[in-house]
This record gives sequence, structure tokens and C-alpha cells, in this order.
Amino acid sequence: MRASQFFLNTLKEAPADAEIVSHQLMMRAGMIKKLAGGIYTYMPMGLRSIRKVEQIVREEMNRAGAIELLMPAVQPAELWQESGRWEKYGPELLRLKDRHQRDFVIGPTHEEVITDVVRKEVKSYRQLPLNLYQIQSKFRDEIRPRFGVMRGREFIMKDAYSFDRNQEAALKTYDIMYEAYQRIFTRLGLNFRAVAADTGSIGGNRSHEFHVIADTGEDAIAYCPASDYAANVELAEAVCNFSRPDATQNLQKVSTPNVTACVDVASLLGCELNKTVKSVVFANRTETEEGVMVQLILALVRGDHEVNDIKLGKLAGVVELSLASDEQIQAAFGCTPGYLGPVGVSSQIRVVADRTVAAMGDFVCGANEAHFHLKGVNWGRDLPEPEVADIRNVVEGDVSPDGKGTLAICRGIEVGHVFYLGTKYSKALQATFLDETGKPAVIEMGCYGIGVTRILGAAIEQNFDDRGIVWPMSIAPFEAVLCPIGYKKSEMVREAADTLYSALKAAGVDVMLDDRDERPGVMFADWELIGVPLRVTLGDRGLKEGKVEFQSRDGRIEKCDLALSEVAARIVKETKESVDA
Amino acid sequence: MRASQFFLNTLKEAPADAEIVSHQLMMRAGMIKKLAGGIYTYMPMGLRSIRKVEQIVREEMNRAGAIELLMPAVQPAELWQESGRWEKYGPELLRLKDRHQRDFVIGPTHEEVITDVVRKEVKSYRQLPLNLYQIQSKFRDEIRPRFGVMRGREFIMKDAYSFDRNQEAALKTYDIMYEAYQRIFTRLGLNFRAVAADTGSIGGNRSHEFHVIADTGEDAIAYCPASDYAANVELAEAVCNFSRPDATQNLQKVSTPNVTACVDVASLLGCELNKTVKSVVFANRTETEEGVMVQLILALVRGDHEVNDIKLGKLAGVVELSLASDEQIQAAFGCTPGYLGPVGVSSQIRVVADRTVAAMGDFVCGANEAHFHLKGVNWGRDLPEPEVADIRNVVEGDVSPDGKGTLAICRGIEVGHVFYLGTKYSKALQATFLDETGKPAVIEMGCYGIGVTRILGAAIEQNFDDRGIVWPMSIAPFEAVLCPIGYKKSEMVREAADTLYSALKAAGVDVMLDDRDERPGVMFADWELIGVPLRVTLGDRGLKEGKVEFQSRDGRIEKCDLALSEVAARIVKETKESVDA
Repeated sequence: MRASQFFLNTLKEAPADAEIVSHQLMMRAGMIKKLAGGIYTYMPMGLRSIRKVEQIVREEMNRAGAIELLMPAVQPAELWQESGRWEKYGPELLRLKDRHQRDFVIGPTHEEVITDVVRKEVKSYRQLPLNLYQIQSKFRDEIRPRFGVMRGREFIMKDAYSFDRNQEAALKTYDIMYEAYQRIFTRLGLNFRAVAADTGSIGGNRSHEFHVIADTGEDAIAYCPASDYAANVELAEAVCNFSRPDATQNLQKVSTPNVTACVDVASLLGCELNKTVKSVVFANRTETEEGVMVQLILALVRGDHEVNDIKLGKLAGVVELSLASDEQIQAAFGCTPGYLGPVGVSSQIRVVADRTVAAMGDFVCGANEAHFHLKGVNWGRDLPEPEVADIRNVVEGDVSPDGKGTLAICRGIEVGHVFYLGTKYSKALQATFLDETGKPAVIEMGCYGIGVTRILGAAIEQNFDDRGIVWPMSIAPFEAVLCPIGYKKSEMVREAADTLYSALKAAGVDVMLDDRDERPGVMFADWELIGVPLRVTLGDRGLKEGKVEFQSRDGRIEKCDLALSEVAARIVKETKESVDA
Repeated sequence: MRASQFFLNTLKEAPADAEIVSHQLMMRAGMIKKLAGGIYTYMPMGLRSIRKVEQIVREEMNRAGAIELLMPAVQPAELWQESGRWEKYGPELLRLKDRHQRDFVIGPTHEEVITDVVRKEVKSYRQLPLNLYQIQSKFRDEIRPRFGVMRGREFIMKDAYSFDRNQEAALKTYDIMYEAYQRIFTRLGLNFRAVAADTGSIGGNRSHEFHVIADTGEDAIAYCPASDYAANVELAEAVCNFSRPDATQNLQKVSTPNVTACVDVASLLGCELNKTVKSVVFANRTETEEGVMVQLILALVRGDHEVNDIKLGKLAGVVELSLASDEQIQAAFGCTPGYLGPVGVSSQIRVVADRTVAAMGDFVCGANEAHFHLKGVNWGRDLPEPEVADIRNVVEGDVSPDGKGTLAICRGIEVGHVFYLGTKYSKALQATFLDETGKPAVIEMGCYGIGVTRILGAAIEQNFDDRGIVWPMSIAPFEAVLCPIGYKKSEMVREAADTLYSALKAAGVDVMLDDRDERPGVMFADWELIGVPLRVTLGDRGLKEGKVEFQSRDGRIEKCDLALSEVAARIVKETKESVDA
């Protein structure tokens, strides 16, 4: 491509509403253009990178045996009513009526449509397994779209749906998709981690999010540098690797006037924060035939830990959890929050101690009396043994659940998700088949998403500097750019640039020739902002000695002179190595 | 691709609502699946052909200098209000509100969005010309969607929009697009014609529709087999190639009781139909400052011709045309319809004679008196010379307007349209640039559409037989299919099929290996229905002599034996020739 025949539109300044660096740089590099909140035109420069992401995704999905189709964006409400999501899905679901006043939605996802296709087509176990995918524009009516392509309303996704005879086969398909995703994100040139994720109401442990690691990521990820263990901080198992010591102190009530936070109590009493226990009271609301029941749960975590209410919510007997009100606490503990503790509480209150708390001795906690705490508290002696469970968030330095080291915490941007669905949709839509014995059985499903446009944003959040984007080779809009200095004035420069351009094109390099005849500073600034991986500068002075300047955007190859006769081969080598990597 | 790893879903019967052959065959071949009225899932088989169409379109658009981008489907109402189409566009425009009750549309076309992009980006004449296109799903809320992909509601289009400095440059771009379309439809392997079309309120003669010729086409096209002249029947110029003969008869009033139609009058009077003149009265409504004016127009065409009201509507002074009411006719002519004619009419009535009528002598027309006609009527002698214009539809056998032969009429399916827009949208949206002299000027635009999914339907309407689809090579879902007889039973068959399959794949042939181990009849019926151009049948008996059976779906290559060792080269040759053609 020649710059004079392309639509370049770089900007000096990002618009004020671009809050994060990927949004700013995509706007400044002319990759996207805002049409409405969360709705963007993918400009020629942006579309080039999108197509490269799509192609890598497509190749690996095909290699994994998935089959591409294309479903409509506009879907009839009836299917969503059948699955129950017409009611359950929030206002992110864009609903509309056609000219005949029939209800439709613009698809934010396609479980209903694909299950409808499959239930009509698949009759026999012989037609399974089946894994169908599409790459398509979706719409989610985010209440506050922002961050450019990171949280847009209209966006491009690859969504795949698998159909299997039974759970065993479905889990095998899950593993195949997991492997395909590993290959996809590796080929995209991104630093990523597969992260164990919540399966929600489906249960089981077959849900992984694929995160691009970036400091600006929205999600905190706990991972073990010594192994491939990784999980959302909220989901990572918190292990306690010490056992309870013997009691050495007597139980003692101490005055702590107006001191409530663990850190302040520890400071006042002259002890370590990790000798204190934090008490948090929740209300568990159960609706039975006899009416509404509310039981209070006293959750205990160490002073330097935080309660994880997702984990708490999964305990047996917990139905609907909320923080207890001050009134509920006063009624049950006879004390205001800030001085609560597990000693001497009513048997009506369910006391749950985090694993770490259960292994503590001589600890400090509230006395259930305003302005007083207890010290030297010991389980079994001063209060009954508690119910023990993992109810806290992991922290940096925790033992990894796989026992292979300690956990570190990083931030990530979710760009993919593999999910074992079981029969959630196939049961609702009655997608059945006749099994080997001729009996009808419900199809087992999985779904597998990749945020194609979001990947661009995530790749930039991971790869940028103060001059602009630093694209991985595989998804850069162009692999190499030729910057001739004096293209229109110097015949030698023009000839060398044109010849090199033709040679690179013939060798299959995705090359841009900047024939705009702009000043070098303008050219360099544009292509550094756009983030093209390889750059060749051709000038009269160097060419007289048969030389050109060569460098890579990521700093791996510093600016150096290369013989004009060798530069094509070198560029081919650099682009090829990236593909092979 | 192996059939066992693909999603085949052929049907014996087409659903009842599939009225035309392309709809029936696409359903039966498993290319599309209905989700709602006019909304289809493109199944894996269908998507393969769609992608091939898209790729040819993309390559030729790029070659012509157009640049691809991708605009959103969901568009804010404000832009449509700015262009005036929010009011003017009918209920085909699907309007909706987002969660904040803001108005949006699902784009049926993208003039507003692209003009908005360009007015924000283009400042100087140096940035022009610019031709931007996308391949994208569109939505038009047809009142009665039908015929499958031929008149769907959601469909895929290529739409391009050009931006030029002035009319001269815009018309040059128009010609470039016209040539690109010629190449596209030629490469698609379709029998097509570029047809001069109506430019509506834009004026000028730069509008061409590209029609795939098929007996089932909705549009009638007049074309000259001896030249490249072609136009919609409604627009084709009707030429009269004879001059008025001298009068030989006297004017005579004849009784024609209850006989009104020209053909019946001719029969009653024993003359040729082409000696009669048909009178049709229109009302031309003009709104001026003084109020509403209605003038009657008496349109005269030969008895065997039809009035063309599009042509009539373009006459000078004609504003809003409708057929005159019986009351208006009675008041002006003092006679009921059926016996009207131009002789002795009030000067208040505008008499317009078609060119052919103006060249007639001794003709027959109504006497403006119930149950009477006139014969031996001659211009100049019996009534004043009329206003003469081309106001009729052409008929088969008319002289071609380019003088190179006579016209034939065929039917076509519109699959593409190139259109010079002028400043219609750029003026409304104030898309201006600074010209060479530094003065602001309005950008000149053109738009260029291709119905990607519609092309599949049109290709089938043009190429089918009683066994199914007969795809052109370039857009067939697979170029060749291997049908091994006894794939699972015979090692010789399996080895030969697998080896041939690998060789063809390595040679870049898009080949399907039917490894389902179905009976030959089932395999043949499936692939003939699906319409794969080349077929190889591999059986034990032939293979023992080193031979396989080869044939083409279109009958060009009849079933013949080929040496197994030669068949790969032959298939490569056949597929390559199609590409080169």
C-alpha cells in the first residue's frame, strides 16, 4: 500500500473523552472514529488489524475442527422468551419492534439462535460432536460505554458453540477449545494467562477466562509464577499453610476507646496486625413456605485479609446474602459494629472462620462491648471451635493452591472465555438427539468467545510507549514501512524505494510505502504513533553508499545501517520469524 | 474438507414458503436456514459461497483504488434527521431507542455515516479523491420479505462511497467503478448486463444497474443483442424510424357501440392495431403561491404501445402526475373514457403525442362522443400538430437507440448499482473542502452497491436444473467433490481417495471428500443438489484398472474415465481456467 492511496488520518491530540491509553492511541492513529457513545467506525487502518486478528482466530478454530457460519444480528424475541433470558437479561439487551410490532432483539450473544439451528438439524448421535462458530458484530447496550473498543456497545466477537453427546465428550471439546485459545493468543503475540473463572449457576470447574496482562487491566489475577496456576483474585483458593499454635496467653478484656479498625487496634495494643481478627456480619435471607427467614453470619478473617462474599455465598445453606444492617447487628450482638467478635455470641448466629483464622492462637478480636476488645483469645478454650471455610481473597505471597510456590497478583484484560454450559440452553429449548440406544437425550453444550475488537485495545494497553502503539507483528496494520526522504525530489531515492517496495510485496510482506513526500519528522511521528514494527529510511546520503537505515518499533533492533541489497531479505526474515514463533 | 467433519444438511423437500427456485434450492442444499421472516442464518455451506463472492468483490474494489473500512450497523437518528431521510425514508427503516430513549436506526445504507466521517476528516483538496467501501450486514424492514436471500430483511452488501473535487472527477470515478463492476460480475461467472437506470431527482445519466439475466427476474430489460446497449424497459428510449405518410383518407366518424379497447376497435373496423391511437388522460397538479393548479394532459400512444408515466413525468412543466378521474375527464372532454381522442379538444388540455403517433397518418382514435370513433385522422389537416415526445415503453423489435440493431427484451435480477449522487448528501451534511484556490467547495459524491447475498440467489436462478444448483466455479462452495464408493470397506478406495484429496488440497483446489460411506445414489444426489462443479467417483472396479470417473455438473464434461494418475492435474486445469477466464 502507498500512503498516497490510503486514508491516513492521525491526530496530534486525543479527544477529551478518551480516558485510557489504548482509546487515546487508537483515536490518534486513526484506527477508529466515534459515531455515537460506544459505537465506532473501524477506519481502514483499524480494519487491517481487525482482519488479522480474525484470520488467526479463524485458522485456529478451523484447525480445532470448528465450522464457521454466520447468524443474524436481529433475532426474534420468541427464542429469548423460550430460554428465559427475555426477562432475565438486563437493559444491555437492545429490544426493538419491527414494522408489524413484533418484538426482536439485536443479538448480544447467540446461544438461543444456534441452539434453535441445532435442534432443528440434529436428530442423531451420528451428527455429533458439532462445534459451530461465527465472527460477527454484536450489540450490548452498556449503560456507560467507555474506553473505546474495550467497552463499546457495537463490537466484533468470535463466538463458538459446541454440541456433544454427553458430559465426557463435552469436556473433551472444552479442552480442545482451551488448547486452540492458547494457540490463538500465542500467535497474536500477546502476553496472556488462562485464568480459572466462576461457573456461576452451572457449577463444575470448566470455565476459563483468557486475560491479556496489562497494568491497566480491570481484573486482578492471582497467579503462580512457578506454575501455570491462575485465577481471578475473587476465585483463587486461599490456602493456610500453618497449624494452630498452643495458647500462651490468658483471655483479657482491654479498653480500646473509639478504636475499631484492626490496624488501629493492633497499633494501640502493640501487636502485629496478623494477630487480629476482623468480624463482618452478613444476613442470609431464605424464603420458605413458612415465610422469610433471616440468619446472621459472623464471618471472621485475619486483620490483614478481606472477606470474599462470592466464596461466602457458596457455603451450604446460604441463599441470599447481604451485609447486616446496624439494627440487625445491635439486636443480635447487643453492641455497635467496630467492637464485634466471636466470643460469647448467641448460638442463633452462624460463626464462620476463615482457614487462617481457625489456625490462629492468642488472637485479638472485638469484645461485643463498645470501646473494648479481647486479647489472648484461643479456640476451644475461650469459645467453641468454629465452622471453617475459605472465605477470604488471596493476597500476594499466599501459598499457591497447586503447592508449587507462592501467588503473585497482576492485572488483566479479559479477551476470551471458554465455558462449559452443560444443558442450560439445550434443556430450555429442548435440543435433543437420539443416542446409540435410540433414546432421546439432551445435548451437552459449551460456548467460547473472543472479543476481536477488544483484542486491539488490550494489545495496545500491553504494548505502547510515549510515542505511540508498539504492535505485535502478527496484528500490526502493516508489518513494515518505507520512509523515503525526498521521494518526489530525488530520483535515486524514488527508484530505490519503489524497487524495495515491489520486492517486499512480491515476497508477501505487508508493506507501506510513505510516498507523501512529507518531512522525515512528520513521517516518523506518524508511523511511530501507528506502531508499524519495522521501518526503513531511505535517503540520498546513505543510498550513495548503497545503504539504508533500519530499525524496529519495539527497540529490539536499534537504528542501524543495512546494505540496500540485503534489507528485503532481512525484513522477510523478521516477519517470518514472527509467524513461526 | 471432509464431509464427516462438515455440517451437511440437505433436505428432500423445500419448505412451503419457498416460492422461487433459488430459495427452494438454497434451503434444500442447506445453505441458509430461516430464523424469522426475511432473516436467515448463513449455514457453513452458504457462507463458503458468500465468502467467495466477498473476496472477488474486495479484490476488484481494491484494484480500483477503493479502501475498505467498516461502519456500525446501529446509527444515531441525528444524522438521518440532518440528511432529511429520517422523515422521508418509509417504514423499511428500522427505528429503535436505546436504554436512554435516544433514537437510532439499524442502517439500511450508509450515506449519512460515511459523509459524517469524511466531513470530519477531509479538509483539503489534497485528500481527494477518496473511495471508501465496506462489506457489511444491512437491515431493511421489508413489508413482505420473500424469495429467500433475494428480498430478505437482513442481508450482506458491499457499499462504496466516492468523494471527489468536482463533477468531472466524480464522473471519472464513476467510470472506474463501472469498469470494476464489469470485472466483478465477469469473475463471478455470471451472465449479466449493465443497464442504464433512472437517476431520479439527481438528474444526469450516470446511473447503471447490473442485472443477472434470468427468466425469473423481476425487472424487464431492453437490450440490443448487436451492441452493449441495455436499459430498464421503463427507461429505454423509444425511437420511431419512419416518417409520417401523406393523408389518403377523409376524416370519418364511425359508430363503435360499447367498443372501447383499441384492439376491439381495430377488429370492428377491419384495420391493423397499429393504425389506432390510444388516449390516456393524466392530471398534472402544481402548487403555486396562488393555490393548487390542475392541468389535464392527453397522452397519445399507438394502440399496441403502453404509456410510460416515468417518461411523461419528466416532461417540462410536469410536477405531480396522476391518472385523471372520471369526473375530471367528463368535465374536460364532455365524454366518458373509452371514446376519447385528440380531435377538437379544448386548448386548456395539453396534448402530447408519442413519437410514433406523431408519425402516423390515416389513424383511428376516439371521437370524444360515447360509442363513436374517428377514422382517417391526419395531423395538420384534422387537428393541430401536437407536442411530440418519447412517452411510451419500448417493445421487442423497436430500433435500438444506438442505431445498431433492434431491441430484445429479457428479464434480470438487480445485483449491483452504480450511482452518481452529486452533492445530495454532501450539501445536506455540509461536507466541504478547501479547493486549490483556498475556497470552500462541496464534495461531489457517488455510491456503488453490490448485493452480496442476493448474488447467490441470482446465480442460482440463472444456473440450475431439475437435480439442483449448477454453481459457476468461482462461487461454488467447493470446486470439486470426491465420491469414493465403499470408503470404509475398501482399502484401495480409501487410499486412492485420501491420496487424491491430499494432492488436490496441496494444489490449492477447494475440494470436498465425501467420507460418509453413504450409498452412491445418496452422495450423487447431495452433491448435484449442492451443485459442486467437478466430481470424481472412485470405485474398486475402476481403480483396479487405475481409472476413476470424472464429470462436470454443468454437463460440459460428460461422465468419462480418467487415469487416476491424471485426474488431479485435470481438476487443477479446470479450476484454474475458470479463474483465468
